[in-house]
Amino acid sequence: MKTQLLYGSVQEDLALVEKTFESLKQADYGPLGEMLEMVLSGGGKLLRPALALLSGRFGHYNLDLLVPLAASVELLHTATLVHDDVIDRAATRRGRPTVNSAFHNSTTVMLGDYLFAHAADQVVRTDNMRVVRLFSETLMIMAKGEIRQDLTAYDGRQTIRDYLQRIGGKTASLFSTACEGGAIVSGQPDEWSQAFRDYGYNFGMAFQIVDDILDFTGDEHEMGKPVGSDLMQGTLTLPSLLLMDRSQENNAVQKYFARPGRDRLAQAVQSVLDSGVTEESYEMAKDFCARARDALSVLPDIGDRQTLEELTEYILERRA
Amino acid sequence: MKTQLLYGSVQEDLALVEKTFESLKQADYGPLGEMLEMVLSGGGKLLRPALALLSGRFGHYNLDLLVPLAASVELLHTATLVHDDVIDRAATRRGRPTVNSAFHNSTTVMLGDYLFAHAADQVVRTDNMRVVRLFSETLMIMAKGEIRQDLTAYDGRQTIRDYLQRIGGKTASLFSTACEGGAIVSGQPDEWSQAFRDYGYNFGMAFQIVDDILDFTGDEHEMGKPVGSDLMQGTLTLPSLLLMDRSQENNAVQKYFARPGRDRLAQAVQSVLDSGVTEESYEMAKDFCARARDALSVLPDIGDRQTLEELTEYILERRA
Repeated sequence: MKTQLLYGSVQEDLALVEKTFESLKQADYGPLGEMLEMVLSGGGKLLRPALALLSGRFGHYNLDLLVPLAASVELLHTATLVHDDVIDRAATRRGRPTVNSAFHNSTTVMLGDYLFAHAADQVVRTDNMRVVRLFSETLMIMAKGEIRQDLTAYDGRQTIRDYLQRIGGKTASLFSTACEGGAIVSGQPDEWSQAFRDYGYNFGMAFQIVDDILDFTGDEHEMGKPVGSDLMQGTLTLPSLLLMDRSQENNAVQKYFARPGRDRLAQAVQSVLDSGVTEESYEMAKDFCARARDALSVLPDIGDRQTLEELTEYILERRA
Repeated sequence: MKTQLLYGSVQEDLALVEKTFESLKQADYGPLGEMLEMVLSGGGKLLRPALALLSGRFGHYNLDLLVPLAASVELLHTATLVHDDVIDRAATRRGRPTVNSAFHNSTTVMLGDYLFAHAADQVVRTDNMRVVRLFSETLMIMAKGEIRQDLTAYDGRQTIRDYLQRIGGKTASLFSTACEGGAIVSGQPDEWSQAFRDYGYNFGMAFQIVDDILDFTGDEHEMGKPVGSDLMQGTLTLPSLLLMDRSQENNAVQKYFARPGRDRLAQAVQSVLDSGVTEESYEMAKDFCARARDALSVLPDIGDRQTLEELTEYILERRA
């Protein structure tokens, strides 16, 4: 299924978000523009901006406000990716070299800050204090989630509950804000913006769980990163945690954490694949998708609602 | 002269800014709180918050709005310091270990982001969209200034004009925003907030020039960092640039940049000290201070205006 066809009535308007990015790159000619080009030059699915616009369809669909909101969400997301690259010392993302492998570490940190600045600049264009406040809260939650992930690296005592809290902060919060923000900016009643908040949150949880499954089951070429990269960074995700729950002692993940090495990593990955925990993880992702769809029940049954429902199917089926 | 006595009528209210920081640390118990403790536990002079409060004295002095503004300015400043520490791989700042020497590089990046989040959280508490917009613009200017400094490291073709533009973005913009923000939050007329903007900008320029002089003339112990640390990081500041202007060929700074080493660094520092360029740099700082004071002329002649004037003397006299 092509992503491009999934965004229904807002498909064409996403070009305006890309146009915003183009104008940012052109305004910063020279090295700054080149750096923006590296991190904002397609490859992303613009899923978060699409959700922001789709949510806006249920209210006063004013693109002068919704496009900056959508751009802001993607810029914030990109800023955290760039800073993640510093952290993980990842050499590729989405199959292309990361900024960090092309520039100095220091420049990468600054580029992330610069993207935060652009995100802030776009969100104030909504001229809506409630949305600005929502963004500020989201930034806080995301930063806490990232620190928590970093501090718990290689810590085998983590629980599935810790994991869910962590991805809630790291990923689901921004999906939630994209959707709730779209509802607020388009002047929808509180009940609807709450529904979008819930939809986005549960959608984001499912999205991250699938991401974490694909880290084991995905194709290295399609994913643009090596299989098992989470374990390589000491990050326990749902499949590894389920495996550890099943065989509390002497499992391949703990063996790898105790003495990291290439062979042991391959064994840990194989062990996850053989155990059926990826199917169990998919079941949890499906539950979150069902909750996301349930949240939409208070909304009018227009075509965009169907698009939002279908998107929950799409994220379960995606392969990269 | 004790800094503490310099802040006049707002001296005691600065305790409320520190109280804000205390409550942030306590809300984040555990590792997060400890990290905040490391970067927000005194040692700083709270110069920027003091300026924000002093500026607010000329309008409706509402501490419920001005304290969050003041806290936000300091948090934004601290966030950039933390990210600077990643960049510079500095081992100490203000005489204490930097966060980066106590934590992983990755954690430090995230801590900086977390401070940005707190800065955003505080500034939205002003409930003033104009101030939020001002902060967003400032973040953009600061990020650009930092990237520019990073990209031009070890580049001997820089001019004094480049330098002034760079410190304008990196430092003066935030001083300017602290002052202008104080004026806006307290509901002052546009002419006054413009005056505060100019005061803060020129004040910040002078402040940074003095900082850059002290990097050559200061006491390592008082400064909490080694003499010549800017050159060590490839950063050309006003004294070095003036020296290079005087002896365009064969000067000790260029020799050091061509082949960095301990002896050559010591020679470059000595050469700056012997040449009289630090006095010339002080003259430029004095000019900026005079411009800062001039900007205040449109304001009513209350005691706080004298405090603001005296602060321009203080920054010229400071030794660390």
